[in-house]
Amino acid sequence: MTTRPDTPLLDTVDTPADLRKLDQSQLRQLSDELRAEMIDAVSTSGGHLGSGLGVVELTTAIHYVFNTPDDKLVFDVGHQCYPHKILTGRRDRIRTLRQGGGLSGFTKRSESEYDPFGAAHSSTSISAGLGFAIANKLKGQPGKAIAVIGDGAMSAGMAYEAMNNAEQAGNRLIVILNDNDMSIAPPVGGLSAYLARMVSSSEYLGLRSMASKIAKKLGRRVWGGLEKAEEYARGMVTGGTMFEELGFYYVGPIDGHNLDHLIPVLENVRDSEQGPVLIHVVTTKGKGYQPAEESADKYHGVPKFDVVTGEKAKSAPGAPAYQNVFGETLAKLADTDDRICAITAAMPSGTGVDKFAQAHPDRAFDVGIAEQHGVTFAAGLAAQGMRPFAAIYSTFLQRAYDQVVHDVAIQNLPVRFAIDRAGLVGADGSTHAGSFDITYLATLPNFVVMAAADEAELVHMTYTAAEYDDGPIAFRYPRGNGVGVEMPETPQKLEIGKGRMVKEGSKIALLSLGTRLAEAMDAAEQLEAKGLSTSVADLRFAKPLDTDLIRRLMTTHEVVVTVEEGAIGGLGAHVLTMASDEGLTDGGLKIRTMRLPDAFQDQDDPKKQYAEAGLDADAIVDTVLNALRHNSAGVEEARA
Amino acid sequence: MTTRPDTPLLDTVDTPADLRKLDQSQLRQLSDELRAEMIDAVSTSGGHLGSGLGVVELTTAIHYVFNTPDDKLVFDVGHQCYPHKILTGRRDRIRTLRQGGGLSGFTKRSESEYDPFGAAHSSTSISAGLGFAIANKLKGQPGKAIAVIGDGAMSAGMAYEAMNNAEQAGNRLIVILNDNDMSIAPPVGGLSAYLARMVSSSEYLGLRSMASKIAKKLGRRVWGGLEKAEEYARGMVTGGTMFEELGFYYVGPIDGHNLDHLIPVLENVRDSEQGPVLIHVVTTKGKGYQPAEESADKYHGVPKFDVVTGEKAKSAPGAPAYQNVFGETLAKLADTDDRICAITAAMPSGTGVDKFAQAHPDRAFDVGIAEQHGVTFAAGLAAQGMRPFAAIYSTFLQRAYDQVVHDVAIQNLPVRFAIDRAGLVGADGSTHAGSFDITYLATLPNFVVMAAADEAELVHMTYTAAEYDDGPIAFRYPRGNGVGVEMPETPQKLEIGKGRMVKEGSKIALLSLGTRLAEAMDAAEQLEAKGLSTSVADLRFAKPLDTDLIRRLMTTHEVVVTVEEGAIGGLGAHVLTMASDEGLTDGGLKIRTMRLPDAFQDQDDPKKQYAEAGLDADAIVDTVLNALRHNSAGVEEARA
Repeated sequence: MTTRPDTPLLDTVDTPADLRKLDQSQLRQLSDELRAEMIDAVSTSGGHLGSGLGVVELTTAIHYVFNTPDDKLVFDVGHQCYPHKILTGRRDRIRTLRQGGGLSGFTKRSESEYDPFGAAHSSTSISAGLGFAIANKLKGQPGKAIAVIGDGAMSAGMAYEAMNNAEQAGNRLIVILNDNDMSIAPPVGGLSAYLARMVSSSEYLGLRSMASKIAKKLGRRVWGGLEKAEEYARGMVTGGTMFEELGFYYVGPIDGHNLDHLIPVLENVRDSEQGPVLIHVVTTKGKGYQPAEESADKYHGVPKFDVVTGEKAKSAPGAPAYQNVFGETLAKLADTDDRICAITAAMPSGTGVDKFAQAHPDRAFDVGIAEQHGVTFAAGLAAQGMRPFAAIYSTFLQRAYDQVVHDVAIQNLPVRFAIDRAGLVGADGSTHAGSFDITYLATLPNFVVMAAADEAELVHMTYTAAEYDDGPIAFRYPRGNGVGVEMPETPQKLEIGKGRMVKEGSKIALLSLGTRLAEAMDAAEQLEAKGLSTSVADLRFAKPLDTDLIRRLMTTHEVVVTVEEGAIGGLGAHVLTMASDEGLTDGGLKIRTMRLPDAFQDQDDPKKQYAEAGLDADAIVDTVLNALRHNSAGVEEARA
Repeated sequence: MTTRPDTPLLDTVDTPADLRKLDQSQLRQLSDELRAEMIDAVSTSGGHLGSGLGVVELTTAIHYVFNTPDDKLVFDVGHQCYPHKILTGRRDRIRTLRQGGGLSGFTKRSESEYDPFGAAHSSTSISAGLGFAIANKLKGQPGKAIAVIGDGAMSAGMAYEAMNNAEQAGNRLIVILNDNDMSIAPPVGGLSAYLARMVSSSEYLGLRSMASKIAKKLGRRVWGGLEKAEEYARGMVTGGTMFEELGFYYVGPIDGHNLDHLIPVLENVRDSEQGPVLIHVVTTKGKGYQPAEESADKYHGVPKFDVVTGEKAKSAPGAPAYQNVFGETLAKLADTDDRICAITAAMPSGTGVDKFAQAHPDRAFDVGIAEQHGVTFAAGLAAQGMRPFAAIYSTFLQRAYDQVVHDVAIQNLPVRFAIDRAGLVGADGSTHAGSFDITYLATLPNFVVMAAADEAELVHMTYTAAEYDDGPIAFRYPRGNGVGVEMPETPQKLEIGKGRMVKEGSKIALLSLGTRLAEAMDAAEQLEAKGLSTSVADLRFAKPLDTDLIRRLMTTHEVVVTVEEGAIGGLGAHVLTMASDEGLTDGGLKIRTMRLPDAFQDQDDPKKQYAEAGLDADAIVDTVLNALRHNSAGVEEARA
């Protein structure tokens, strides 16, 4: 165990009220201690490091200048909130970040009054802040809203929609654009900070145009929509053009690590009658921790690490990650099929599209945080004969639901959806869980919906999707590593709407979809040990269902149980609906559906999350045994 | 029957190939005939008039200059496509617009090769066009994409996301911004058109900055996000700033009714190596038909009308429209509750929020075509103690699904969703049908989901939602007029999760959700006539279910049938899931679920659509009789 850093000043600060008792001259030391404390905490818990390090001074300055929690501080995405948590009464639990029962890795309303609005998905902060601002205006009560949003988050249309509506908030809304990509960011010095401070004073707001003329025009054109958007945000804010057109008073750029610049600017903006104001702050991701600053991804998300050396804890070598299986399989298929394209929304590495892009850069598209555009762009590609794969996490595909319905499903266009992070996701918690995609996709006409039981199945499904040109097709798979099955030499084209029998029995039938298959097999073993002959099917398809297989199992088994990694309305609902449509339930068949619970689950180890959800082998066995017990007493008794 | 207009030149044009044989000097006459034909057609069919009249010359010019259908013309929204349909081989069916078996009121891929991408929802055209352009680029084949998008559609984030990614299309993508709000639009004359033509010539592209300096700065600040966005779009394109920052070559503004300006500009852009290009065209909605030009809404959507007088066919006075019942009820509740707010996304009249805004302008928010922002803004209002109602059509709420999940449901914030246009919608067809909201909302933890059986129920549900502060709550209701029930003097606060028995019987139980209740009652009458004692329940809640009521009916009746105006995964799925969870299906109960079919339905009279869907009284009776017949033979036989 490492020694904790010395933090004499930070030790006196439990809440922002304590912070505001300090002299401004003490804030430099406080920030240094806060940074050290954060590095030490994340070294023991793992988590998002670079983002938080970049906003240590900004977070300190905001809480120092504004009257939180009455003034509402809304962080966009929220993974930069660790320093904020330390300053707002949660330091005692900061080493529990992202662990079961611990602090969330994001802002969370239920955790603190200093978290007025939770986040995790991008680009929501301005809309939420506007809600707070307008509510206060309507109520005639004081209180401003401060939205802190990164330059990357500006690539999402939602941020644009919000800015387009911000003017009515007047001086109650302050947007802080946290421009933190140091590979593109400019060297900002005293002059520009001075000008920023001048123009932020209501007395000098007329000098804004002068400031914007002096500030240098930035610009570097690089691959991909996200970088383009960042550059766009940056290029424009130098002059402030876009924000001013939208009704903001633009202030900046200023050095986000210089408290002597930050504090007076924030004070001026706080006291200004003008608004809404957008403050353009330039920060360095990973600031103040050399291994992070020198790392390519600035230690965006890290496992536990050694503070002195920066060395990260290594996980045991295991089966390949699903995302890489997908990316590599697709890249290989594309070697001989020039119609295949891949689209990611700012997640090239997380989706494995980076593997594809290495092999086929001209057919890889990173559209930025723009799932809506990404899906309809894919639909356009499909309409012109390409074979596009939209690789989007389950939870983020929610952003493009209307495009999935309106542009893909209604037109029956063969867009392939590679849905990563399906089911429960562990440390990222409820905001990142992929719980609803089976339900919201399988309800759509024309859609084919698959789920991979393991990494070999993912290979087959990727190939099956590539070869399927009749309409939209989706396949889902979880976060993390595969189960270690042997990988197929050649991918297999699956028959649409056909499942596979994994184990033949006679009394109990388990219908599995996705990676619960291993638990179903485990449960089957336990049931067999109790003398209950058990069949296990991997349905592969939530839609279309393998009605032949299901009908056969329902008419030859006593108990049929579906198991899926999704919420109500998905596989279980479709199986029940088919069964009741056909009258298969009329004769006393016992069907049970096992699914995610009707509750959002907090972060924890995925295995524990699934146990809590009642979706492990033991829970399957219990469900079967309960159903069997119900046989003799249950319904007949209830009907009497 | 009125005499059809004389159209000697138009009669020679069946496809754009015919059009391109004409001399440019003939296009004025052709456009005049096209306009007359369109007015005459819509006068007999009803439909969208103003938008199409505004783009007669633009449509003619595009087909004249570009090589459609190899060049892909993508209309945004699509309600301006009637002249396009007349010019592309569909004139013979133009008087069947929006009718059962007739032409769609929007572009539709299955209808014509000249409709490369269907539309109806806003702001998709640039993304789709980019897909076509990039596909052609990858294939190394010729072909440009022309996206025609209105200024209003620019308020949606999706358009911004697409523009942010457009640069890679190069000269294969042309965006035509159709700036058609003449109440704000400028008088654009020869000079500006001349400059536009100059700057669109690749030789003179360097003069763009001169053009933008000369073009007058527009500006008028008015209520609401949509107008703000339009002004924004307009203000900026005058200088072209935003579009140029995003990588477009900006051309305009030019007079969209002057073919002598349009044609050379389009030719220059077509032949330019520079791109992508954005052409800013100013048009007059309703152009060339005086009653439309003089009408406040420019005859946006009209019933049949008399061409000479402009007098519109009146529908018989009937029960109030659901949207107005909602708007007026909410306005009244807000008289004594200053926490109530209403949010609409560019549909103040369609949602009834206009009624609310008249009474409480400070608490009514039109955010533009920005459902994403609207929902999270509402979440912010709710987090600060307001009682926001997000009034959004079922089909458009799909645009905000992630915000519904991430910002509302996970945080359990009491945002009220007033969901109009639930179920089938008639003439607007599949793109506007509200088929999926029960499924995609009821799968979410924390959500309450109601459906109104009639307009009196809508009053109660509006009040119930206002008073419910425990989390998100949604209530859905159909397009059109109520059924004529007596309206309550005072609204009633419904108990959450409790249905109501409408008719008590003993053998058959019909569980209805929403306005199918009338059909269920009709079916019950038919069943009683056959000696089958029938219960009818109006469940009111899809979530939480009235488990007590359902359990009682399931344990005392032989056949239970659910009826809903939604797709699979909704009420029926939830009832089946509850029943199987509790083992109620183990003993031989016959359950059937009636829902929308697994197909997108084309436009037709709603009554016919529901008959086609198998959701009318006759279909309910059939379902019950089939279930009863199944009793003696079906499952037992199948299991043998």
